Amino acid sequence: MRALTLNDGVELRNIDAPSRERHEALVQVRLAGVCATDLELARGYMGFRGVLGHEFVGEVVASPNARWIGRRVVGEINVGCGSCARCKAGLSRHCDTRSVLGIKAKDGCFAEYLTLPLDNLIEVPAQVPDEMAVFTEPLAAAFEILEQVHIGPNSRALVLGDGRLGLLCAMVLAHIGCDTHMLGRHEAKLAIARAHGVRTFALPDGPLHTYGVVVEATGNPEGLARAIELTEPRGTLVLKTTQRESPALDLNQVVIREISLVGSRCGPFGPALRAMASGRIDPRPLIHERFDLEEGVRALARAGEPGVLKVLLQMS
Amino acid sequence: MRALTLNDGVELRNIDAPSRERHEALVQVRLAGVCATDLELARGYMGFRGVLGHEFVGEVVASPNARWIGRRVVGEINVGCGSCARCKAGLSRHCDTRSVLGIKAKDGCFAEYLTLPLDNLIEVPAQVPDEMAVFTEPLAAAFEILEQVHIGPNSRALVLGDGRLGLLCAMVLAHIGCDTHMLGRHEAKLAIARAHGVRTFALPDGPLHTYGVVVEATGNPEGLARAIELTEPRGTLVLKTTQRESPALDLNQVVIREISLVGSRCGPFGPALRAMASGRIDPRPLIHERFDLEEGVRALARAGEPGVLKVLLQMS
Repeated sequence: MRALTLNDGVELRNIDAPSRERHEALVQVRLAGVCATDLELARGYMGFRGVLGHEFVGEVVASPNARWIGRRVVGEINVGCGSCARCKAGLSRHCDTRSVLGIKAKDGCFAEYLTLPLDNLIEVPAQVPDEMAVFTEPLAAAFEILEQVHIGPNSRALVLGDGRLGLLCAMVLAHIGCDTHMLGRHEAKLAIARAHGVRTFALPDGPLHTYGVVVEATGNPEGLARAIELTEPRGTLVLKTTQRESPALDLNQVVIREISLVGSRCGPFGPALRAMASGRIDPRPLIHERFDLEEGVRALARAGEPGVLKVLLQMS
Repeated sequence: MRALTLNDGVELRNIDAPSRERHEALVQVRLAGVCATDLELARGYMGFRGVLGHEFVGEVVASPNARWIGRRVVGEINVGCGSCARCKAGLSRHCDTRSVLGIKAKDGCFAEYLTLPLDNLIEVPAQVPDEMAVFTEPLAAAFEILEQVHIGPNSRALVLGDGRLGLLCAMVLAHIGCDTHMLGRHEAKLAIARAHGVRTFALPDGPLHTYGVVVEATGNPEGLARAIELTEPRGTLVLKTTQRESPALDLNQVVIREISLVGSRCGPFGPALRAMASGRIDPRPLIHERFDLEEGVRALARAGEPGVLKVLLQMS
């Protein structure tokens, strides 16, 4: 099969289709999304080698349970050991020995086929087209904020950064009714947020007050410093992105103003699918361009250009 | 009156007793405690100038309400403006224009007299002697952890650092019944924790597992890095101390393991006084040495020596 692989660099290769283990399903990938993490991995983050990609929608073509064959699915990307205390507590996303689709010790979805344990798969409702379903994983990461932090509908929240993840976070916050603001630098992206009921501010200007909830989605140290400034005393600052370097942080401000910094990563797929199925959230305005898998190297380069939102890869 | 003042350096001076404003009481200080913050202020932190000290027990000698005269009191050290939204919400400890006793724009308690608004004073129960009451402010800071973080009695918590504040935090955590551990480097201090039901580990060894709740009370970057390592996925790391420098932090670990970092500062006096009045917490084993105010410069030097716990200043 054709696959976009990371070795010394990223290239399209012909490799064997993955052979599934007994508890795994074989999934034919239909559509996949490029994420900032893929670009970081390509630059050496985590030392990953193999097939890239973790955002996908596909169809089950082989399965330990025949009823799944032919179903359209998305998949939880963390594969826990299944036997440690965390896995048994339902926290397989935090299993110490987990593999992660296209990120750690497991080939990803920028390929014609992938394998995942049947337990990781979730069927996509008929009313969610592929172009929406492919956003399930990053939208779930945005929903994770609501799993970790209590945000009431009377809260005032700010999302810092108008990139892919920032926009999804703003959509999630706005759709629960809280007064959601966004600070970014790209008018076209801010316009997408505004269409979802978000009040926007363009850099270098910005809001003049502080917020009870701030979501840091810029991924750069300047954004993080600004995020701390914009969080009110006793407020919560959600860290939604990893940073390439370890930034020097003014933790004294965190202590003196009693701010809570909440690290936030992958999230639950169910709420993301329900929100898209009901029409409460439609992430499709984020789609920037579609490429065939053959053009995968070019697609990744495009996804890394400034101002580019979601780049999709179609497999056939 | 005699007062330990910070100008270019710390010295004992004869200055005028403070004149109280209409809503303030005049308090004759009986006993005061030296805190790490006093030592930091003496080194230039916050740029404070004036009378040092914020941990005290004293007696009201003049008051807008005559019923308070003669009462033995402790005092909330933050003085809010009383009119901003935060003050009106009961968050005067986070008022932007607050003054802070002996820390910011208000003379402190290392003197024969101080003034505080009557609203800041709390009467000390008769069964709490001066030697306990003088710990109310730092013990309240330890209780602040329970105000900010839900810690059940089945939790396993670790306090990092066996200094004054670390020991008070461990006492507070242990007394609510949670499985409390401490990691430190001074056997004599760890012994105090053990006497309060805390399980202790001496550096360079340490616990082999991670904790759902970790309290960082070392105040140094190495302690902070270790604290992140020792916090389990989805766990809470309470930042109880300010740091002299802004440390470079591995925030990626915070994001990937979804840790919550909770900045924590001053706390509620009521629970601290109740815990001491009932005998549930007795901080007196922390007392290292008592000095007369006359010897204040020497007392501060002593408090800065390695391994020294609480140094008290008596005013008469």
